[in-house]
Amino acid sequence: MGSKLTKRAEDYSKWYNELVVKADLAENSGVRGMMVIKPYGYAIWEKMQAELDRMFKETGHENAYFPLLIPKSYFSREASHVDGFAKECAVVTHYRLKNDEDGKGIVVDEKAKLEEELIIRPTSETIIWDSYRKWIQSYRDLPLLINQWANVMRWEMRTRLFLRTAEFLWQEGHTAHATREEALEEAEKMQEVYAEFAEKFMAMPVIKGTKTESERFAGALETYTIEAIMQDGKALQAGTSHFLGQNFAKAFDVKFTTREGKQDYVWATSWGVSTRLMGALVMSHSDDHGLVLPPRLAPIQLVVVPIYKSEEQLQRIDERVQELIKPLREMGVTVKYDNRTTHKPGWKFAEYELKGVPLRLGLGPRDLENGTAELARRDTLEKQVISQDDLVIKVKELLDEIQENLFKKAISYRDSMITEVDTFEEFKEVLETKGGFVSAHWDGTGETEEEIKTKTKATIRCIPLNAAEKEGKCVLTGRPSSRRVIFAKAY
Amino acid sequence: MGSKLTKRAEDYSKWYNELVVKADLAENSGVRGMMVIKPYGYAIWEKMQAELDRMFKETGHENAYFPLLIPKSYFSREASHVDGFAKECAVVTHYRLKNDEDGKGIVVDEKAKLEEELIIRPTSETIIWDSYRKWIQSYRDLPLLINQWANVMRWEMRTRLFLRTAEFLWQEGHTAHATREEALEEAEKMQEVYAEFAEKFMAMPVIKGTKTESERFAGALETYTIEAIMQDGKALQAGTSHFLGQNFAKAFDVKFTTREGKQDYVWATSWGVSTRLMGALVMSHSDDHGLVLPPRLAPIQLVVVPIYKSEEQLQRIDERVQELIKPLREMGVTVKYDNRTTHKPGWKFAEYELKGVPLRLGLGPRDLENGTAELARRDTLEKQVISQDDLVIKVKELLDEIQENLFKKAISYRDSMITEVDTFEEFKEVLETKGGFVSAHWDGTGETEEEIKTKTKATIRCIPLNAAEKEGKCVLTGRPSSRRVIFAKAY
Repeated sequence: MGSKLTKRAEDYSKWYNELVVKADLAENSGVRGMMVIKPYGYAIWEKMQAELDRMFKETGHENAYFPLLIPKSYFSREASHVDGFAKECAVVTHYRLKNDEDGKGIVVDEKAKLEEELIIRPTSETIIWDSYRKWIQSYRDLPLLINQWANVMRWEMRTRLFLRTAEFLWQEGHTAHATREEALEEAEKMQEVYAEFAEKFMAMPVIKGTKTESERFAGALETYTIEAIMQDGKALQAGTSHFLGQNFAKAFDVKFTTREGKQDYVWATSWGVSTRLMGALVMSHSDDHGLVLPPRLAPIQLVVVPIYKSEEQLQRIDERVQELIKPLREMGVTVKYDNRTTHKPGWKFAEYELKGVPLRLGLGPRDLENGTAELARRDTLEKQVISQDDLVIKVKELLDEIQENLFKKAISYRDSMITEVDTFEEFKEVLETKGGFVSAHWDGTGETEEEIKTKTKATIRCIPLNAAEKEGKCVLTGRPSSRRVIFAKAY
Repeated sequence: MGSKLTKRAEDYSKWYNELVVKADLAENSGVRGMMVIKPYGYAIWEKMQAELDRMFKETGHENAYFPLLIPKSYFSREASHVDGFAKECAVVTHYRLKNDEDGKGIVVDEKAKLEEELIIRPTSETIIWDSYRKWIQSYRDLPLLINQWANVMRWEMRTRLFLRTAEFLWQEGHTAHATREEALEEAEKMQEVYAEFAEKFMAMPVIKGTKTESERFAGALETYTIEAIMQDGKALQAGTSHFLGQNFAKAFDVKFTTREGKQDYVWATSWGVSTRLMGALVMSHSDDHGLVLPPRLAPIQLVVVPIYKSEEQLQRIDERVQELIKPLREMGVTVKYDNRTTHKPGWKFAEYELKGVPLRLGLGPRDLENGTAELARRDTLEKQVISQDDLVIKVKELLDEIQENLFKKAISYRDSMITEVDTFEEFKEVLETKGGFVSAHWDGTGETEEEIKTKTKATIRCIPLNAAEKEGKCVLTGRPSSRRVIFAKAY
């Protein structure tokens, strides 16, 4: 447990860092910028993976695995990709160490220098499309719908647990299609899958939109994004899906014979979400007491804590608890019974509050007599005494209610954090005081986008998919605009 | 599909390589020694992972994730570990690339040289024990039972798909205990888990034993192993579990307060299996027609192939098949209905034979009239005409029977390939002609072990756990020995 958590209002950033460490989600390792994901944090990630993997498979995708290391020359093949990805990355130059001649340690064996340097994948388009050339000959081989769960590395100078780390875990989908339309449809479908996951499982509402040219993935013709808002008013890009056109097919010479017998380049998409979602989850719902987890992603949904004075009392409670949790487990509820004698009930209450367990059941000797128990929910911190007979139905109801409540609360916060502005004064004012998403007209040029960024640190998070066509004037230049876009300062 | 498979008797090694590629399990990538695991191969690995992960969790382990890159100096801390692992490995020396001045590509930015080189993990003991120092203070923190699913890298000069690749996927368990006995018990328990997995799921019998000192994991006091025999008479080490004593705790200064209030170093184990098991699976059961997969690990357990001439026939078959496979799927059988019109039934039969699908159901217009279907099993290649009414029960029965039959067949082959010898002449004779496991007396010295290896290429695979104490004379030196050990040439 350790000492008290910093309050969000005091220092949001410090609160986040402390919470991630104290709740046993992750910690910094001895290697610069690289984190250790601890068992409790990893259990949440496993739940995320399981749901996403199911959704990918239901939409026809299969998993595969491609090499960690990519020859340097692969990156140069797609011109815009190299600028975006081949810079800040880990470079393997040697393949052997040897004992130092002074006998004090080991040193790189200079004789074991690679002819061509290998790069630890920052993303796998290049190595995957190099394989697709061998896999795709005809329209019969299409669509090719593949996903990979993997670690990737981007050499970040300023890192933060989950949000920005040199190594992170993610999934990357890479699909190949016979037509432009099919590829576009796929990219849009995966944005939809991500949005559904964020909202139904993470209870985190998102704005769906497309990126401006300057914010697109390196090598993409269109980037679809889902954007969420954190409690401090900063935006977080939670997942992206890219329509890559024929860029990678051309770079890696992937052609196919069409139904009509002609040769054409293949159309591509790629899409990914990462352990960054863990950071988004923490910052969406948690409070000054600790984590608040949506039941659908909580590794423990209900914790049972016995309250006792004597060994004999504990034994009687143990017996009753076993009876009570059996039907819950059969119903699929994840229950932990913490009857450790090394820690007091009060310590345990605080611990599971910190760890965001959605429901806590307390059971003492008087409860045994009365057939009652105390059920506490983490989201509202409300407690109620219930009849043990109602436990199953109450738990089921409350888990659904908590999931729904977190989502509703997040939606209402998100909605309150979208501000329409029409002047640059207002624009700056809102960003400086309230934060959040600023909905404003923009003249569509990269220069204006850049100037706004320089002046306010806000970027265009997306051009919302549901944005109404409406004439207006650019908030900076006054030039004509046909729809509002969403600006924000972002993680 | 492509051309015909080389026969095992002709060239076993060639047969294996061809089969792995033709059955779409894996292929070599453009990066030396690194493979691409294709969707069909990865689906088998996912099934292996799911079962192993369940078994690990049932025995109290949790998953976590530690950094891919390990500072060079960490390896030097445990003296015997460094010799075993820090030599042939991928070394990261730089963290940035830049555009070449000639404008033709990208080069390593010499300014971005790391102060200390980072090694891509060949195994994670060092980085994990560096974390454990922070996690373990008291006996209350023990045992710590953690597993990691990860990619690792060992720079191999001669590689073969799945069997020996520079990068491979694996799981590595790393546990910490308060006593020597507990750690020994854990190491033995995990050997048992691996043996159970190999036998129940892979249908691959194994010999359980311990390694000799020279064959132990670098840094271990005892290595428990499971050893299998392949169809060509060579042995394959399928999984190892190590008792590490206090070596890593001492190297990384991991002490704890005992129940009695004293300070002591923590006791450790580590254990792992890898994608090498994919190679073992292929070589245990497959034949000259292609893969043979045990039903419990087969991504497709039953494939249904319609046999038709007209579009109208196919439609009627489609309808009937949907009715037939519904109860099978509900029962948990993985069914694929391949009604592609782009390929003929004969092509499909050969394809699923090659891919080792345990059961194939053929259904034609006459079957619709008669209420029959043809069910073929992959292991024996036997076919039978069954009544559609019996389909569910037949499929269930046959899947169990195939699983059992593969295991029985493998046991009887394995047993036939253990040969007891008492002279060095016999020893050499058996290795050269019959191959397999050779059970012989050994004087217990590393010198004799080494000399035998030099003369015959056979190594001591293990000292079997169930070996009877029996006096004898070393097969090479004639010196006294108290039990037989198992020799073999190995993968």
